[in-house]
Amino acid sequence: MAKTPTIRDVALLANVSIGTVSRVVNDAADVKPQIRKAVESAIEKLGYVPNAAAKSMRMGRTRTVGCILREINIAQLGGFVSTAHNMLNEAGYALLIANSEGRRQREMELLRNFSSGQVDGVLMGPYTPIEGEFEDLLRGLPIPFVMIDRDQPSWCNAVYTDHEGGLAQATGHLLDLGHRQIALLTGPTRLHPGAARVRGYERAYRERGLEPDPELVVAESFLRDQGYRVTSSMLGMSQPPTAIIAGGIDMLSGVLKAIRTRGLRIPQDISVVGSGQSDLADLHQPPIAVVGWDQNEVGATAAALLLDLITHGKREEPRRVIIPTTFNAQASCMPPPARDMTPA
Amino acid sequence: MAKTPTIRDVALLANVSIGTVSRVVNDAADVKPQIRKAVESAIEKLGYVPNAAAKSMRMGRTRTVGCILREINIAQLGGFVSTAHNMLNEAGYALLIANSEGRRQREMELLRNFSSGQVDGVLMGPYTPIEGEFEDLLRGLPIPFVMIDRDQPSWCNAVYTDHEGGLAQATGHLLDLGHRQIALLTGPTRLHPGAARVRGYERAYRERGLEPDPELVVAESFLRDQGYRVTSSMLGMSQPPTAIIAGGIDMLSGVLKAIRTRGLRIPQDISVVGSGQSDLADLHQPPIAVVGWDQNEVGATAAALLLDLITHGKREEPRRVIIPTTFNAQASCMPPPARDMTPA
Repeated sequence: MAKTPTIRDVALLANVSIGTVSRVVNDAADVKPQIRKAVESAIEKLGYVPNAAAKSMRMGRTRTVGCILREINIAQLGGFVSTAHNMLNEAGYALLIANSEGRRQREMELLRNFSSGQVDGVLMGPYTPIEGEFEDLLRGLPIPFVMIDRDQPSWCNAVYTDHEGGLAQATGHLLDLGHRQIALLTGPTRLHPGAARVRGYERAYRERGLEPDPELVVAESFLRDQGYRVTSSMLGMSQPPTAIIAGGIDMLSGVLKAIRTRGLRIPQDISVVGSGQSDLADLHQPPIAVVGWDQNEVGATAAALLLDLITHGKREEPRRVIIPTTFNAQASCMPPPARDMTPA
Repeated sequence: MAKTPTIRDVALLANVSIGTVSRVVNDAADVKPQIRKAVESAIEKLGYVPNAAAKSMRMGRTRTVGCILREINIAQLGGFVSTAHNMLNEAGYALLIANSEGRRQREMELLRNFSSGQVDGVLMGPYTPIEGEFEDLLRGLPIPFVMIDRDQPSWCNAVYTDHEGGLAQATGHLLDLGHRQIALLTGPTRLHPGAARVRGYERAYRERGLEPDPELVVAESFLRDQGYRVTSSMLGMSQPPTAIIAGGIDMLSGVLKAIRTRGLRIPQDISVVGSGQSDLADLHQPPIAVVGWDQNEVGATAAALLLDLITHGKREEPRRVIIPTTFNAQASCMPPPARDMTPA
């Protein structure tokens, strides 16, 4: 097995110091032509590849962008990651993805590591509140970053989705079909996708002169198993919901499984709305109505924004782009079963 | 906005050269105690964070593992990535994931970058043949690596899945139900998951004294849209298949969409088998039979193997672990429609 040549091997072969090899590799001006030739010839002969870390330190460029996500394995994030990756690739950048598990220490540690010579910019969707030492870290970050689906803090460059408008449409559709007991399962309201969905849901009720029932809004977690647990629990209530909105891209399967476990039929016994287009929603019988948005657009916009910040530097004002949502009504939504039409 | 302190700022504050600061940061022995104190005090006062690239170069350790995948957005890879990530995290390692898009130049470029000071080990599922310069690169890699779902080259440490056994069971089940025209859609046979599936399929036929029809085996690509295109095309044949096996973790949705587009019913008109457990297969009506395996086990085994190689160095013999498959028969498989029982 051939040993990988080191800078020491090159120096020995060219009969110069390691420092001289380093200066040649980093295109320093002060190297005599015949010395440079000798070093370059030795590099070629040995097949030496300069240490990437050293090069990035010297040049201030890594040609890499970092991406911090809570969990890498959420299918619908695929379109975002894939498109961002392709755009970055075309501009000559590699994309490195890291899991934060939604833990603050991890989010901050990843940011520190990324920003100390490892990448030229960061795409991030943090799960912990941006305040105190976390906000200080962001303000002092030596590289640009773009928030993904976060509207806070307001001084950050961000690309986020209009979950409020989509939920207002979906909830309005269910209310217009006659539902009153509509459950919304979503994440914590300290995060944009949770807060915006709750606002949209409440707005639809109020625009129709109705009051939402707070017992039916569970804004705690976007985790996969949350959909199953909360739905199971709600279906056991004396007055269960007649419609459920899965307000998170990873929550629909849990909601559907809980409904199926109870032997209920969609839409005859219960109506369902999901978040984000998916094969699961499309191929279900009946197809599941979803609030959708173009994850490819999120990826392309975020990548373009970050590339611009890397290339041209920070601007006076942060740029904040809102990605529109659409509500795609499907056969998973029908008027509620007759028993629930009686006044409470 | 606070500016991030640099090594120059520390040198200025401590009234020493940059080289001296660097020697203190890297724990060099030859620094006078009072100089060291002055530098450490300046570092603390400024909140200076040493450049990660410089540290890793010096210490020879990055506490990071790289993972090269064709595409990051394949849902079923989630379990593998998630579990590998958790195990690596517990051992103090971060996981960096990169897209290769299945292109040779990209796979090699990522390997070179990863192995020149960026990570301490690599998990990889290459899509291009490991031969020639690619194999040379692997043999000379200064860091350990583990192949994921690849059984070649035989000198590599690898964790791969028994797709052959699973496909033999699935195909045998369909043959025993009376099917003879069974289509297999999978990837190229130069890759283990393609080759192993074809071998299992053929074995099931031959064990029953039957000959498979080569027109019904399309072993070209694992890409998502392949499932749709090939299924549509086959369903237009004068003698269409009576069963389809989607032989790739990302191919089932395309197969199902093509079947639905033609207005066919599963299983009455056509039987279907998928690869890898998924919400789509579970929640479909009827549930789709799949050849399954534990992606978490793949992730955990690969991570453990790589951590061992990083910590204890390479061994005489490569370690190669086979992950077992199971076939989970479901209502998506039934005897073929009566018309196809007549001898060909």
